[in-house]
Amino acid sequence: GFARIDTRREARQGVAECVYTPGKRPEEVVAIVAELLAHATGPVLATRADPDTAQAVLAAHPAGRYDPQARLLAWRPAPPRGFRLAVLTAGTADWPVAAEAAAVARAVGLEVDVYRDVGVAGLHRLLDCVDAVTAHHAVVVVAGMEGALASVVGGLVAHPVIAVPTSTGYGAGLEGVTALLAMLSSCAAGLTVVNIDSGFGAAMAAHRLATA
Amino acid sequence: GFARIDTRREARQGVAECVYTPGKRPEEVVAIVAELLAHATGPVLATRADPDTAQAVLAAHPAGRYDPQARLLAWRPAPPRGFRLAVLTAGTADWPVAAEAAAVARAVGLEVDVYRDVGVAGLHRLLDCVDAVTAHHAVVVVAGMEGALASVVGGLVAHPVIAVPTSTGYGAGLEGVTALLAMLSSCAAGLTVVNIDSGFGAAMAAHRLATA
Amino acid sequence: GFARIDTRREARQGVAECVYTPGKRPEEVVAIVAELLAHATGPVLATRADPDTAQAVLAAHPAGRYDPQARLLAWRPAPPRGFRLAVLTAGTADWPVAAEAAAVARAVGLEVDVYRDVGVAGLHRLLDCVDAVTAHHAVVVVAGMEGALASVVGGLVAHPVIAVPTSTGYGAGLEGVTALLAMLSSCAAGLTVVNIDSGFGAAMAAHRLATA
Amino acid sequence: GFARIDTRREARQGVAECVYTPGKRPEEVVAIVAELLAHATGPVLATRADPDTAQAVLAAHPAGRYDPQARLLAWRPAPPRGFRLAVLTAGTADWPVAAEAAAVARAVGLEVDVYRDVGVAGLHRLLDCVDAVTAHHAVVVVAGMEGALASVVGGLVAHPVIAVPTSTGYGAGLEGVTALLAMLSSCAAGLTVVNIDSGFGAAMAAHRLATA
Amino acid sequence: GFARIDTRREARQGVAECVYTPGKRPEEVVAIVAELLAHATGPVLATRADPDTAQAVLAAHPAGRYDPQARLLAWRPAPPRGFRLAVLTAGTADWPVAAEAAAVARAVGLEVDVYRDVGVAGLHRLLDCVDAVTAHHAVVVVAGMEGALASVVGGLVAHPVIAVPTSTGYGAGLEGVTALLAMLSSCAAGLTVVNIDSGFGAAMAAHRLATA
Amino acid sequence: GFARIDTRREARQGVAECVYTPGKRPEEVVAIVAELLAHATGPVLATRADPDTAQAVLAAHPAGRYDPQARLLAWRPAPPRGFRLAVLTAGTADWPVAAEAAAVARAVGLEVDVYRDVGVAGLHRLLDCVDAVTAHHAVVVVAGMEGALASVVGGLVAHPVIAVPTSTGYGAGLEGVTALLAMLSSCAAGLTVVNIDSGFGAAMAAHRLATA
Amino acid sequence: GFARIDTRREARQGVAECVYTPGKRPEEVVAIVAELLAHATGPVLATRADPDTAQAVLAAHPAGRYDPQARLLAWRPAPPRGFRLAVLTAGTADWPVAAEAAAVARAVGLEVDVYRDVGVAGLHRLLDCVDAVTAHHAVVVVAGMEGALASVVGGLVAHPVIAVPTSTGYGAGLEGVTALLAMLSSCAAGLTVVNIDSGFGAAMAAHRLATA
Amino acid sequence: GFARIDTRREARQGVAECVYTPGKRPEEVVAIVAELLAHATGPVLATRADPDTAQAVLAAHPAGRYDPQARLLAWRPAPPRGFRLAVLTAGTADWPVAAEAAAVARAVGLEVDVYRDVGVAGLHRLLDCVDAVTAHHAVVVVAGMEGALASVVGGLVAHPVIAVPTSTGYGAGLEGVTALLAMLSSCAAGLTVVNIDSGFGAAMAAHRLATA
Ligand SMILES: Nc1ncnc2c1ncn2[C@@H]1O[C@H](COP(=O)(O)O)[C@@H](O)[C@H]1O
Ligand SMILES: Nc1ncnc2c1ncn2[C@@H]1O[C@H](COP(=O)(O)O)[C@@H](O)[C@H]1O
Ligand SMILES: Nc1ncnc2c1ncn2[C@@H]1O[C@H](COP(=O)(O)O)[C@@H](O)[C@H]1O
Ligand SMILES: Nc1ncnc2c1ncn2[C@@H]1O[C@H](COP(=O)(O)O)[C@@H](O)[C@H]1O
Ligand SMILES: [Mg+2]
Ligand SMILES: [Mg+2]
Ligand SMILES: [Mg+2]
Ligand SMILES: [Mg+2]
Ligand SMILES: [Mg+2]
Ligand SMILES: [Mg+2]
Ligand SMILES: [Mg+2]
Ligand SMILES: [Mg+2]
Repeated sequence: GFARIDTRREARQGVAECVYTPGKRPEEVVAIVAELLAHATGPVLATRADPDTAQAVLAAHPAGRYDPQARLLAWRPAPPRGFRLAVLTAGTADWPVAAEAAAVARAVGLEVDVYRDVGVAGLHRLLDCVDAVTAHHAVVVVAGMEGALASVVGGLVAHPVIAVPTSTGYGAGLEGVTALLAMLSSCAAGLTVVNIDSGFGAAMAAHRLATA
Repeated sequence: GFARIDTRREARQGVAECVYTPGKRPEEVVAIVAELLAHATGPVLATRADPDTAQAVLAAHPAGRYDPQARLLAWRPAPPRGFRLAVLTAGTADWPVAAEAAAVARAVGLEVDVYRDVGVAGLHRLLDCVDAVTAHHAVVVVAGMEGALASVVGGLVAHPVIAVPTSTGYGAGLEGVTALLAMLSSCAAGLTVVNIDSGFGAAMAAHRLATA
Repeated sequence: GFARIDTRREARQGVAECVYTPGKRPEEVVAIVAELLAHATGPVLATRADPDTAQAVLAAHPAGRYDPQARLLAWRPAPPRGFRLAVLTAGTADWPVAAEAAAVARAVGLEVDVYRDVGVAGLHRLLDCVDAVTAHHAVVVVAGMEGALASVVGGLVAHPVIAVPTSTGYGAGLEGVTALLAMLSSCAAGLTVVNIDSGFGAAMAAHRLATA
Repeated sequence: GFARIDTRREARQGVAECVYTPGKRPEEVVAIVAELLAHATGPVLATRADPDTAQAVLAAHPAGRYDPQARLLAWRPAPPRGFRLAVLTAGTADWPVAAEAAAVARAVGLEVDVYRDVGVAGLHRLLDCVDAVTAHHAVVVVAGMEGALASVVGGLVAHPVIAVPTSTGYGAGLEGVTALLAMLSSCAAGLTVVNIDSGFGAAMAAHRLATA
Repeated sequence: GFARIDTRREARQGVAECVYTPGKRPEEVVAIVAELLAHATGPVLATRADPDTAQAVLAAHPAGRYDPQARLLAWRPAPPRGFRLAVLTAGTADWPVAAEAAAVARAVGLEVDVYRDVGVAGLHRLLDCVDAVTAHHAVVVVAGMEGALASVVGGLVAHPVIAVPTSTGYGAGLEGVTALLAMLSSCAAGLTVVNIDSGFGAAMAAHRLATA
Repeated sequence: GFARIDTRREARQGVAECVYTPGKRPEEVVAIVAELLAHATGPVLATRADPDTAQAVLAAHPAGRYDPQARLLAWRPAPPRGFRLAVLTAGTADWPVAAEAAAVARAVGLEVDVYRDVGVAGLHRLLDCVDAVTAHHAVVVVAGMEGALASVVGGLVAHPVIAVPTSTGYGAGLEGVTALLAMLSSCAAGLTVVNIDSGFGAAMAAHRLATA
Repeated sequence: GFARIDTRREARQGVAECVYTPGKRPEEVVAIVAELLAHATGPVLATRADPDTAQAVLAAHPAGRYDPQARLLAWRPAPPRGFRLAVLTAGTADWPVAAEAAAVARAVGLEVDVYRDVGVAGLHRLLDCVDAVTAHHAVVVVAGMEGALASVVGGLVAHPVIAVPTSTGYGAGLEGVTALLAMLSSCAAGLTVVNIDSGFGAAMAAHRLATA
Repeated sequence: GFARIDTRREARQGVAECVYTPGKRPEEVVAIVAELLAHATGPVLATRADPDTAQAVLAAHPAGRYDPQARLLAWRPAPPRGFRLAVLTAGTADWPVAAEAAAVARAVGLEVDVYRDVGVAGLHRLLDCVDAVTAHHAVVVVAGMEGALASVVGGLVAHPVIAVPTSTGYGAGLEGVTALLAMLSSCAAGLTVVNIDSGFGAAMAAHRLATA
């Protein structure tokens, strides 16, 4: 076949291999999802699915659900298990990445609350929700442009902070590279960072925390 | 004064502000450490201290200890609190960064075991210690050159993995940038990454996990 | 004419000049292929041909074959001559590059076996096929993202390893530059590397090995 | 001579040409300063002077003063003219750059107050001095690492903000490039940015504001 | 809702939060503009609006005006308050960025004169209008390619100069990065720089000057 | 008007300002060309014109000619004046850039011979035409990928060599940046280099030689 | 211990793990070499050894030899086994890297001939030795600056070509990155590339060829 | 021998191969110079020689002369042949590069006038000497920081302009890369560019012009 699924991943890591749909034809995704549904017992996910692919794959595997903002296809979502995750975004434009983080995290069993549009240009928005944020077990910060929200949150809370740079912005933002480098260079100690626009990566990192 | 210490940090985050010694004169470090010892009740740390600075600062504050490989000065280390951290290095040359991670982590109360020189060029070395590694709560992977160890570890364990790229290597290694980018682009889902050569950052990220 | 073919290349290097089709109109490709078929006696290849170009060129030179996944047009493929090449891919998305490597290698007379989707996130997949891989004369490793597969394979086998970074991935993957730099910085000694997405380059490097 | 001084600059812009001392021998600086003192009537400055150069130049032109932290030599400082400038630093290590900004600004007639070590990792430090800062005409923000202080200040005040990235930090900080890109990409509208480590540039930009 | 508007920004900084339209659907822009018109009393702006978005938003909020070259939607423009801004462009292709700078500046109450196409390749064009330019309070210089106009203007006038690099050019121009770096490295002291193509940023920086 | 033509350029430099058509509407090009035809007496050129723009502009100014490969519109080409220029290309794909160089050079009065497809992978092609090349006054070398042709030509001839890197290639070619850096780093002494894909720049540099 | 040697490497790959001496103290190298001499039966190598380290290590293990130009320490060199390797350098300054390639290759049993200073700026030097070069089994090309020698050699011979970029040069040479990118983008098909300045990597790649 | 001199270069290109001294021991330079003096009849040059090397080499070949600012050793300088070259520098700090350009140009027989410190921050300095500059056959412009002088000169004169970026500056100047990119992107048509800090390259390019 065109794919060799890592059939032991659910046993090893608690979640089966997830399908990255870009570059795969719908029928390939259908086949891989079939194999995953057969080999695993828990959630099966396909990320970055555009609406057409989603529709075609759901036709073959109708028990799943599609979240168009998160671009996520999910089957057999895990039941919530008491790990609460706060997902913050700096601006409205960061929403698609945060939506992916939230949707994947929920599908693998985390409880997620979202705090949108709390960027540092209007700091009171963040200060107003710090108490609510600290009632969670971990925090995901999604920010583009210069990514300063991650540093400010990292300085305010004692929690694990997973920073997700986004490609929001233009020019010197270098398609997310600036936010990435800034988050890695943060003056707030102990932040961790995942790839640009990788809501998926942040959710899976949070899943590792919940498993720890 | 030349410094405005964040005197509320211990209350907010569990560890007082740490001193970054490069660019500060010994008498400045002495003064800041004095203020930190007075305002905080737990561990006080000064990182990246060269031996001369260390000797001068310890002369003024003799209750501390200096770890020359980790380049760390520490006063009032926290008692262990049952969070076990595994620190892995790919090669011998990555040791100074791992030493900093281990020393800082121990100073803030984590229990650390180190697995040195388990790089993927001789894979059996890693496979031989996977079971021991999985007996911890989280894993720090320290690797330079191409940083592949982070991906392999990330694929083998379900734990939180904090990857630390190092500047070990030459040419296309770009002083750690290649390992950094590689770890961020890892095919293993849910890895998190800190700054190049930042053993300190990895330890503080682990401290956040232990606090969660 | 618009092209000056290197008519002595087959004599010098065993394979005639290959046509890089992007940027050439179909009628230009037709004319160059005609000249190559006339001047050379062995295989004639046109790479990166999209389906429309392929159809137009085959209409003029119907003795050739088009492989749509490899995007390769080939006339007069060389007979196999006993050099066995293993082509490995890290993920499903690396297939088009591997397909080009395999198709070009076969067209110039190598015997190729392909091992797909053996990336290090699920290491057992690779370990399961190491013995089969070592039964070949050389290995091509095709991987995007962080390209760690090249290091792991390089550490396991004694064979010549030709690493092909691919542009698979996003963000910090920098369109293949990260995999490229990582492969060049590998901790496994003696890997060699070709250009990003250059299945063609890997196949021609293997052809040089077979000629040696 | 080895230099062609822009003798009309004081008339055109209010401050004579300033000497950039790196790469010039002390006797060259002595000669240029002599010419500037003769052609201009107001302040004469030589930047980035190390202590040895400073001593040698002051021996020849003893009416000047040397500020070793700012590395500035200044003759005939301008009298204060009622423009108040706030200079903020994120961390202790940013001080030399801020010192240059403050010293140059004072030498050209601005009134300067400095707020050191108010980085966002301990946000209350900044919030405690916002009112004092807003009592000025303009703000210079000096920050390295990820430079987030500029965004937060830019969101809190309505004043002209001149952001100065510094080379403080390591690894992903890229010797100040990350802070530079971050400040340029700030979500706070209307920030302006000068070159990395250019306290001089920030002071001269403030001088232009005071002249406007 | 999908956005959390910074409703205190007008009070803090004199202009309400501006909407960055790319990535938002027309109905989202409509809703945000409604909220801004309700919470603020002065100008409400939406930048980078393409004609279709503009038409849809104006249908809901017909009191606004759309400037297609500036891609700006503006409601309740501020009355002029006596601050005169000169906007210069190096070449014809820099016009869209300058148009945004001019339109935003006018909408927030500045008086703007534009001097187009005065690039240094034909220096007399600039020299012919220097006197007119100096009759303003501040200068915005919009230039792509190598951005030399900013240095030349910076050397001729004593005013605050806000340099805007544009992505005009090709090859070594690196989509505006070269102009950006050049402006930051200018030999003319005291220039300030905003993000590539950010006419908006330049206008808001000028607004801060006018407020000072 | 939307453009301020440098009407003195023909007097200063022998050729009137040339129109860069991208980003200009056809009616703008028509108006600028009208002004140039009126103010200058010699050649008037518009570069990078796509066929639709060309047709629209020629409708208004029918005395001109359009070269679709060079994408050049030219009116009143200068008569030849005895300066012979050799234009070499490494590969077939470099032709559009070389075509622009040749067409602009001819339009400003140089005599041009083109030697196509003489790249170093088949060195004899170049060696076969070295004698013909040396019969010219200057040489333009157009090459993409690694740009090695410039070095080899630079080592063989004593003439002025103007190297033009092209964006031909992929991956590590970095859209022409690699060829650009390589040509600038050439081991052949005294090569000069112009911008990526700038056939226009090479022709104008040759025109300066012819004028010297 | 401070190192975990890959004791199975000789069995797997024919050569024991090699010691990279930078960053290791002499006594650490002494200990690792002792372990390698005990566990392996064939050659033991320590690369990049400066003279002081070399002297200290040889004092403990006097049966070895030190090559100061190659900076290589070698014990128990392998007997020649009939694989002939040609090592070419573009310029005199590339010699140290070529010396490392030659010395490591000889130590692992290859027969090496060196052709120095055959750069393309004086092409006849290369053409004069092509026949001698083709009498070998494989070719290593060591070149800095623009690295054009690799392309020219790659076009002349049918052999495996291992290109080694060096950091020779300045400015646009970017410490070897330009040569690296150029070699990867070569118009000669089937070149392979190793890391900048990695004579060691080229020799080990040649060793893999000899093993194939 | 350790070097293979290109003994035919003087015949081919009018000047013998020049010795690049960095990385060569004095005795190596002595030997190469001996060979060059024997094989060539005209000038023999060794560039970038530090004073110690210069003294040692002159001891062996006392007929030469050393220019310490240009770091040039020259024997048998060519007689002037009527080609006049103007060398301009933007700032005092650019002098060493300009000195190399001037000294090499004179040694190969050009007549050189130098115009120092005519940077665009004080434009009148350049305008005052434009007439003198235009009395030459070609112009070399040496500038660091943003390199704007090249564009302004290129717009004022019709001559061949060879732009030399220098590493003068800091931060965003990127050690000369910014000036390099800016000169390549110049809005003045027909500039040519050589490597960063390559006074040698500019002089040799001028020599090619003089030969044409
Ligand atoms: N053209 C523009 N360039 C840069 N920033 C802008 C622009 N237009 C609006 N903004 C900023 O973008 C922010 C809104 O981001 P968002 O929450 O994604 O809508 C506001 O704080 C504005 O200051
Ligand atoms: N000159 C060299 N360049 C690159 N890698 C080397 C070099 N010398 C030894 N090595 C590799 O470095 C690894 C040892 O790294 P370490 O554990 O840090 O001593 C071994 O696997 C060798 O293959
Ligand atoms: N200052 C310089 N900058 C660049 N190339 C130079 C310089 N001086 C000499 N060269 C070139 O360096 C080559 C010699 O390199 P090598 O064989 O390493 O001595 C000659 O071909 C010269 O053309
Ligand atoms: N610290 C500084 N940073 C940047 N530019 C400076 C500095 N000090 C002086 N300058 C500028 O450097 C120019 C002098 O350069 P030079 O001719 O090389 O002495 C003057 O025009 C100053 O405006
Ligand atoms: Mg918002
Ligand atoms: Mg090791
Ligand atoms: Mg897969
Ligand atoms: Mg501090
Ligand atoms: Mg114009
Ligand atoms: Mg060709
Ligand atoms: Mg040489
Ligand atoms: Mg000067």
